[in-house]
Amino acid sequence: MRVIEIRDQFGLENLHLTERPTPEASDLQPGEVLLQMRAASLNYRDLLMVRGQYNPRQPLPLIPCSDGVGEVIAVRDAAEGVQRVKVGHRVATLFAQRWLGGEPSPERSRSTLGGPLDGTLAERMILPAEGVVPVPEHLSDEEAATLPCAALTAWSALVTHGQIKAGDTVLLQGTGGVSIFALQFAHLLGARVILTSSSDEKLHRARELGAWGTINYKTTEHWGKEARQLTGGRGVDHVVEVGGAGTLEQSLAAVRMGGSISVIGVLSGTRSPVDVIPILMNQVRLQGILVGHRDAFEAMNRAIAVGQLQPIVDRVFPLEETRAALEHMAAGRHFGKVCVRL
Amino acid sequence: MRVIEIRDQFGLENLHLTERPTPEASDLQPGEVLLQMRAASLNYRDLLMVRGQYNPRQPLPLIPCSDGVGEVIAVRDAAEGVQRVKVGHRVATLFAQRWLGGEPSPERSRSTLGGPLDGTLAERMILPAEGVVPVPEHLSDEEAATLPCAALTAWSALVTHGQIKAGDTVLLQGTGGVSIFALQFAHLLGARVILTSSSDEKLHRARELGAWGTINYKTTEHWGKEARQLTGGRGVDHVVEVGGAGTLEQSLAAVRMGGSISVIGVLSGTRSPVDVIPILMNQVRLQGILVGHRDAFEAMNRAIAVGQLQPIVDRVFPLEETRAALEHMAAGRHFGKVCVRL
Amino acid sequence: MRVIEIRDQFGLENLHLTERPTPEASDLQPGEVLLQMRAASLNYRDLLMVRGQYNPRQPLPLIPCSDGVGEVIAVRDAAEGVQRVKVGHRVATLFAQRWLGGEPSPERSRSTLGGPLDGTLAERMILPAEGVVPVPEHLSDEEAATLPCAALTAWSALVTHGQIKAGDTVLLQGTGGVSIFALQFAHLLGARVILTSSSDEKLHRARELGAWGTINYKTTEHWGKEARQLTGGRGVDHVVEVGGAGTLEQSLAAVRMGGSISVIGVLSGTRSPVDVIPILMNQVRLQGILVGHRDAFEAMNRAIAVGQLQPIVDRVFPLEETRAALEHMAAGRHFGKVCVRL
Amino acid sequence: MRVIEIRDQFGLENLHLTERPTPEASDLQPGEVLLQMRAASLNYRDLLMVRGQYNPRQPLPLIPCSDGVGEVIAVRDAAEGVQRVKVGHRVATLFAQRWLGGEPSPERSRSTLGGPLDGTLAERMILPAEGVVPVPEHLSDEEAATLPCAALTAWSALVTHGQIKAGDTVLLQGTGGVSIFALQFAHLLGARVILTSSSDEKLHRARELGAWGTINYKTTEHWGKEARQLTGGRGVDHVVEVGGAGTLEQSLAAVRMGGSISVIGVLSGTRSPVDVIPILMNQVRLQGILVGHRDAFEAMNRAIAVGQLQPIVDRVFPLEETRAALEHMAAGRHFGKVCVRL
Repeated sequence: MRVIEIRDQFGLENLHLTERPTPEASDLQPGEVLLQMRAASLNYRDLLMVRGQYNPRQPLPLIPCSDGVGEVIAVRDAAEGVQRVKVGHRVATLFAQRWLGGEPSPERSRSTLGGPLDGTLAERMILPAEGVVPVPEHLSDEEAATLPCAALTAWSALVTHGQIKAGDTVLLQGTGGVSIFALQFAHLLGARVILTSSSDEKLHRARELGAWGTINYKTTEHWGKEARQLTGGRGVDHVVEVGGAGTLEQSLAAVRMGGSISVIGVLSGTRSPVDVIPILMNQVRLQGILVGHRDAFEAMNRAIAVGQLQPIVDRVFPLEETRAALEHMAAGRHFGKVCVRL
Repeated sequence: MRVIEIRDQFGLENLHLTERPTPEASDLQPGEVLLQMRAASLNYRDLLMVRGQYNPRQPLPLIPCSDGVGEVIAVRDAAEGVQRVKVGHRVATLFAQRWLGGEPSPERSRSTLGGPLDGTLAERMILPAEGVVPVPEHLSDEEAATLPCAALTAWSALVTHGQIKAGDTVLLQGTGGVSIFALQFAHLLGARVILTSSSDEKLHRARELGAWGTINYKTTEHWGKEARQLTGGRGVDHVVEVGGAGTLEQSLAAVRMGGSISVIGVLSGTRSPVDVIPILMNQVRLQGILVGHRDAFEAMNRAIAVGQLQPIVDRVFPLEETRAALEHMAAGRHFGKVCVRL
Repeated sequence: MRVIEIRDQFGLENLHLTERPTPEASDLQPGEVLLQMRAASLNYRDLLMVRGQYNPRQPLPLIPCSDGVGEVIAVRDAAEGVQRVKVGHRVATLFAQRWLGGEPSPERSRSTLGGPLDGTLAERMILPAEGVVPVPEHLSDEEAATLPCAALTAWSALVTHGQIKAGDTVLLQGTGGVSIFALQFAHLLGARVILTSSSDEKLHRARELGAWGTINYKTTEHWGKEARQLTGGRGVDHVVEVGGAGTLEQSLAAVRMGGSISVIGVLSGTRSPVDVIPILMNQVRLQGILVGHRDAFEAMNRAIAVGQLQPIVDRVFPLEETRAALEHMAAGRHFGKVCVRL
Repeated sequence: MRVIEIRDQFGLENLHLTERPTPEASDLQPGEVLLQMRAASLNYRDLLMVRGQYNPRQPLPLIPCSDGVGEVIAVRDAAEGVQRVKVGHRVATLFAQRWLGGEPSPERSRSTLGGPLDGTLAERMILPAEGVVPVPEHLSDEEAATLPCAALTAWSALVTHGQIKAGDTVLLQGTGGVSIFALQFAHLLGARVILTSSSDEKLHRARELGAWGTINYKTTEHWGKEARQLTGGRGVDHVVEVGGAGTLEQSLAAVRMGGSISVIGVLSGTRSPVDVIPILMNQVRLQGILVGHRDAFEAMNRAIAVGQLQPIVDRVFPLEETRAALEHMAAGRHFGKVCVRL
């Protein structure tokens, strides 16, 4: 089968389209399924992984990318005979293969796809039946492939941890995959969204997707204060913080007393001075979010099905153009998700 | 000023339109506000109260009815000088005047309007500033008057306690005030509603308001099982139980493992055999709900404003026809809320 | 190896001590462990199962009993190579083999030991590594064998769902395994316990274990009201309801406004008239509890280790006297847990 | 009556013992109580306030100090006639006079004692009946006076927000009032405490109070890592962070995946570089804590009564030596709380 591999050393230039032995039904251990992969989607983590910035000690070669969707073409029952998925089901991969529900733990967080385990840029995969999730029927393969990380991160931030409710105001940063899913979920939940971007065109598209307020952070330096003013001075109920230390101070300026901030990314740098006083005086909660568990994935899928939510696919590349796909994402010109067709 | 009073003894026939001294700004204690009332709305509790079935020891005369909306026409500041509401604000009454937030307690539950304290069927009221809540601007006076009990009960059931989320399925019973608000809120939150009624016409209207599934419980005796089947066998995530013991067994048949039931009413009788086994085996949660606190009222108002939710007013009666209004509600022919214009 | 089997038909008289092929390391599938069993403990469920009252459609023969402790004598790694437990570890069995954390589901609840799956009254067992939990070192084998159902049920009731805190008052019924664990956990958590029994001698022993208040329900018919009075009229914060419908009305009389009741058993009958009004008016929460998940088991073990809690073992029977052990429990003369030595 | 005042300008040298008109029962507004004060306790906030560092715009003169206990010597009923406290009750002051329960808000946080409102260093006070809380009987006046800020902050951190449970490990910093209360509460809740200090003598005293592990942060630079190692590598479940940005990195090194950090103080500086990555990768929750509400105060008092907890009073000064008391606290030589006798 064809796969994409990082070989020898890290770097986009070391991505290779190559052949590996095709896994067959006879290779399955009890409790495993064989998937014919159809599509994958890219996350910023995949870019960092390929560049060697995510985990420099990751052994190579590695098939990168954690998110994908495929069709179950063979199943081998576990001893207890429980059958989670059947041949013919279309399923997505679970980022942390062993985190099915409950609290995170190192044991549950360890077995993630796209590093340390091989990822989804392969024509076939063998995975535990516990590690895949049926996807909503109304989605195309590419749309379904966007769910495992970006959508689930947004869901974990807003629902599992944020517990936002109708009438809340949510502040989102930029138009990457997580922020656009957060926009769509917040909308579905009856909440009001304020979104920032450096591009008026992207802000315009965000409004079309239901954003209530928009702020161009290039022209409005103190966008945290501006977001607060848009709420009549009360402050936003929730922030999905994708920038990291670099934008945290603006988020703290925007959030209401007793509000919360999901810390999900570090795009703008990992280490910078933070003033602890507003956290304390405004009794703010910060919650680090790293994707989420299978229970949440399944709940999210029900929400997507009930709301007939349509993920935003920015562009689809063929497998052999994976490098171009990653470069497109690195350039930050995308709006929503970048996908690879298998 | 004109008021409606239950005088001498309980019973609809003892409701009188009468005069009481008009409260003036000079009558205010520190921290109180004077309201010019505009509309009230009726709840089943008001009917029970007038009939002497809610609390037979309630002293008379009593101005019945807990829900109303009025304009603030005078304010006297409390010692600390905090000004919650200003002259000109349009506000609703808080059912439990002292339950501002946090857990319920006998102390907080005692001072409810429409018994033991005088209620809203009066042209003017003096209330603590803490006991009123500004209402969303887009609502008419009658619409705003429906919020204090019916809407807040539905909100407390679905949001404060039920914590339902997008993609959940909610089972609602009938088309009274609470159920219709629950339908609208569930819809706003991205959830899917199954609603029961004995009237196909009412089921039709419910579908127009967004109900996804409907069951006529006259023609479908085992409507709990039917609701479960509509969910593909999984069961509904949440039930708002308005019938009491009489319908609880059906609700238990409908709810999924780990699901929850809000117990908010006893229309069909207070005491009947209940089988505890399904509660245990399916790990179901039952939560008694009695209206809610001011924090929840304010959150609900934000949701109503953001979602531009329009409460369903069945019919509006003038003050002098209060008895007819109560009889209209008693007959169960309404869909949504019955109001009184002041 | 020797095992206890229910053969041919249900009934205590059909329990047989018999031989089955001894499982060996070479029988392990990937991800499984081989246990040399040392002790088991009995639950009321085991009695009902043997009698055919729990699930009359359970196929026979069956090795009964869900709770046991054994030593890991062989491990076969799963494909991903994660090693949860090692040879030499002393582990307890997980009641629901697939419920590792998160919400309950039919899928997770299905694979329970002692029916439908074979149980712990066997000298050896093969289980998934995911389905066993290392036990605190300071416990004897019999003490450790009491944890999987009784202790975890009490923990789920008080901690996972009840979230009781220091200063709360907890009402417990009787001196069976769950109630005594609940007494010990409540004590550990800084809560105050009121316990009921029909035996003054057992009440005396409960006081020695830290019960603050005791009520003989034979001599005090309205023990719910009595429990309330012991709290100065406020009511207890939490009840662990083991009796089912038969005692629920007393529990509702005892619990404070906003308090909660864990429904964990049905000793006194499954179906009886319940008055819904107090649930509603006092905003009480009822939560059905069915044992619990592995995350909770591990948290409980940390609490047992930190608090050096000593489970109360009423009596230990040899394997060949399993029937006598079950009869001893059926007679209700025990205080704490009845165990079987393997 | 005698009071302590900051007059003319900020600074410890501007604290004056002076006379103000003695409030009498006839001065009470409806709903207010008159207290004969008996004791006060000092918090770091009081020191900052007196120095003008907490709120430089605070109008002067001001009676400082938010924590005190007094006897109710007169009550004037509110219109609704509810009587929370009676003449003869011994009560503590509520820090945020209007935060009775539920979520924090600017409105609720505004009316704090000791700035902007006059505080407890006065022989008499008039307060709303809603703004005082009866204290456990077994405490001396000085011990009871330590509760309003330090104890309630520790309780809010561990219980209201941290929801710690038996078996958890809690990391505490230093031996100030909050940390010592947190040590005592954690102990009461069955949790295990690791405490840091620069003084071996204080660590010794902490162990006597029940600390399980102790670390001298002067001799152990990487005390976060050391705390983690004490837990066998798993990490602590909860940290009560009193140092602010200066110590946050150590706390992040100590906390387990999925653990939480209560941010309650800024002793070591408010602004310093923070690395966001561990928050994200370990899914840590940070929660800013600012004292707490009356519901929590009352729950805490029940825990203190049930556990017969004895607050640690470092030293008691007479009113006229208030400045010396503040200097004693500023020097950091105390262990537990510094009090003033009225």
